[in-house]
Amino acid sequence: MSTSAFSTKDYVRRMERAAGQAAEAGLAGILVSPGPDLTYFTGYRPTAVTERITLLILDTDREPVMMVPVLERPDAEPAPGAAAVSLVDWADGDDPYAALASLLDPVGHYAVSDSAWAMHLLGLQRSVPGSRYSAMTDVLPMLRAVKESDEVDRLAAAGAAADAAYRDILGVSFAGRSERDIGAQLAGFLREHGHSQVDFTIVGSGPNGANPHHEMSDRIVRNGDTVILDFGGLCAGYGSDTTRTVHVGPATDEERQVFDVVRRAQQAAFEAVRPGVTCQEIDRVARRVIGDAGYGRYFIHRTGHGIGLTTHEPPYLVEGELQPLVPGMCFSIEPGIYLPGRFGVRIEDIVTVTEDGGRRLNNTARDMHVVS
Amino acid sequence: MSTSAFSTKDYVRRMERAAGQAAEAGLAGILVSPGPDLTYFTGYRPTAVTERITLLILDTDREPVMMVPVLERPDAEPAPGAAAVSLVDWADGDDPYAALASLLDPVGHYAVSDSAWAMHLLGLQRSVPGSRYSAMTDVLPMLRAVKESDEVDRLAAAGAAADAAYRDILGVSFAGRSERDIGAQLAGFLREHGHSQVDFTIVGSGPNGANPHHEMSDRIVRNGDTVILDFGGLCAGYGSDTTRTVHVGPATDEERQVFDVVRRAQQAAFEAVRPGVTCQEIDRVARRVIGDAGYGRYFIHRTGHGIGLTTHEPPYLVEGELQPLVPGMCFSIEPGIYLPGRFGVRIEDIVTVTEDGGRRLNNTARDMHVVS
Repeated sequence: MSTSAFSTKDYVRRMERAAGQAAEAGLAGILVSPGPDLTYFTGYRPTAVTERITLLILDTDREPVMMVPVLERPDAEPAPGAAAVSLVDWADGDDPYAALASLLDPVGHYAVSDSAWAMHLLGLQRSVPGSRYSAMTDVLPMLRAVKESDEVDRLAAAGAAADAAYRDILGVSFAGRSERDIGAQLAGFLREHGHSQVDFTIVGSGPNGANPHHEMSDRIVRNGDTVILDFGGLCAGYGSDTTRTVHVGPATDEERQVFDVVRRAQQAAFEAVRPGVTCQEIDRVARRVIGDAGYGRYFIHRTGHGIGLTTHEPPYLVEGELQPLVPGMCFSIEPGIYLPGRFGVRIEDIVTVTEDGGRRLNNTARDMHVVS
Repeated sequence: MSTSAFSTKDYVRRMERAAGQAAEAGLAGILVSPGPDLTYFTGYRPTAVTERITLLILDTDREPVMMVPVLERPDAEPAPGAAAVSLVDWADGDDPYAALASLLDPVGHYAVSDSAWAMHLLGLQRSVPGSRYSAMTDVLPMLRAVKESDEVDRLAAAGAAADAAYRDILGVSFAGRSERDIGAQLAGFLREHGHSQVDFTIVGSGPNGANPHHEMSDRIVRNGDTVILDFGGLCAGYGSDTTRTVHVGPATDEERQVFDVVRRAQQAAFEAVRPGVTCQEIDRVARRVIGDAGYGRYFIHRTGHGIGLTTHEPPYLVEGELQPLVPGMCFSIEPGIYLPGRFGVRIEDIVTVTEDGGRRLNNTARDMHVVS
């Protein structure tokens, strides 16, 4: 990776843009809790997310303030974004919610990080009874969805690392080994190719592939199995998420046919990507191909999800999501067909929206590779 | 470990007891989200905690119901506690909060897991506008605090494994190696002795020890350093958390004196443990010893925290916590003295409350061991 670390300036730009978006949405500000939002705005990742509240306040008309437990202040101070934020601390025994009340608009409407703890939100609702709150995804869903070019570079590097791991796993033997064993090997390849963290290596062989959330089991893969490989994690802080479906030995006509439908659906959805098209429309394009082939009721999940600092974030490619695509958005396109008790097929790439279409960040072949 | 897995019967007993406690507290029920609470009541740990809501409802006068994303239903069904719960699922595109509304008392007051996502709580507040919510720790703080004997056995096994790892690390050389290197070795010992997960291996040498939340750095440990080792993780699902302070080569008189104060504080707090004494009182006992020795302003954190399925949970041993100790409670006792820019000392054991006192679950020597 040739990407350098984000600087204080990068974080300041993000905080200012977010405050502007909050003002446009009629909000008093944004309350950011530890997790991807706080990483995005400050580069600060507390060692552990606990009952001790840490909260960044991006007010629409005041300077940013971050409240931290006094014990964690030495960890927060060196974060590049913290240099542009006033730090306020609190100690065990203090009431941090009462202290936060003096920093918030008593009748303000705030967006709050989706994964902020309910305990902390309830503390704010209690200490600032006139305030109102909405989940970030409900009121500012696109806050992190449009990636800066430095972020797209990182996602592309993560995709390339995942591609390299996939090429490695094609060279190993599948038949006679457990899903768990193959998954562990795939995780090793992801790490070898630069992943700092492996979040999932799904190996869904035969009937297990028909459960789209199956992870790995002790099932022994055998000749004749269709095998879904869905794998990803973090590489330099950004996510990878790729699915390929392989076959152990020659496939049957039906397996090839189902595979072909999924491949056409994935390709059609990819080709539909361009600025201005709605998220819902990408889902519909994939669904139409699968429906027309008679497999509609076996495509039982949305077509995709955004990816960035996390592997599941807006935008979601799902019926009802009317958000238009914008250059810089990055998301998965991953249609699938799941035949209960028999087998499943899924193909997934990460795609970024360009000025006039889409660009895939995963580039290994999308055919049904035959493994041994 | 000779402990066997918890059974459906164990989970049913816990759910019934919790519903009873909720009724006594005047609540309509308990809303349990993925994390330690859901593990405690059902044994179910979703692969990932995401924007797709999973929620167990323990109603005070209806049978337990758990709502899960349809994709995750096959993962939830095999959980031993799920056998005693009605499963309801929802699919992408549905409004899960609207579906939950039909399962909740429209004007009920519910306890909700501390770490439930704010997004999900806001969804419930929107779809059931007459309902009220409080954080579990605020209204039912002792729900998981009093451990069953099978749980204490698991915590004791985790403590014994941590003890074994500490004995191993005493045999390695410290001087000339980085904190990070020593921490990685300690993590390896924890895994060798049965930890499935290592959550922290703090190595705070010299001035780094004066920051109680310091983790590890590239600082090279040298002769004359005081070194805090604070380490723990999960062993068969239950937490360990131990701190010992060692010295590289002979200690100065002042270092020995500070160490002695911390040791006396830790011992005094331990000896104060017995049913009926308040959490606050244990904190005060430790603080008094340190204050009397003139180091009061260098003891900058609470004396301890509960431990179980997580390493930080109620009860908290802190000023203002009037909860009396009850047999079966398990928590850390971990006073410390932190001299900014110089060094720190902390000693921590996990202690369980017995019928007439306390029992330590960590049993290595609490002297200032001299390492090389």
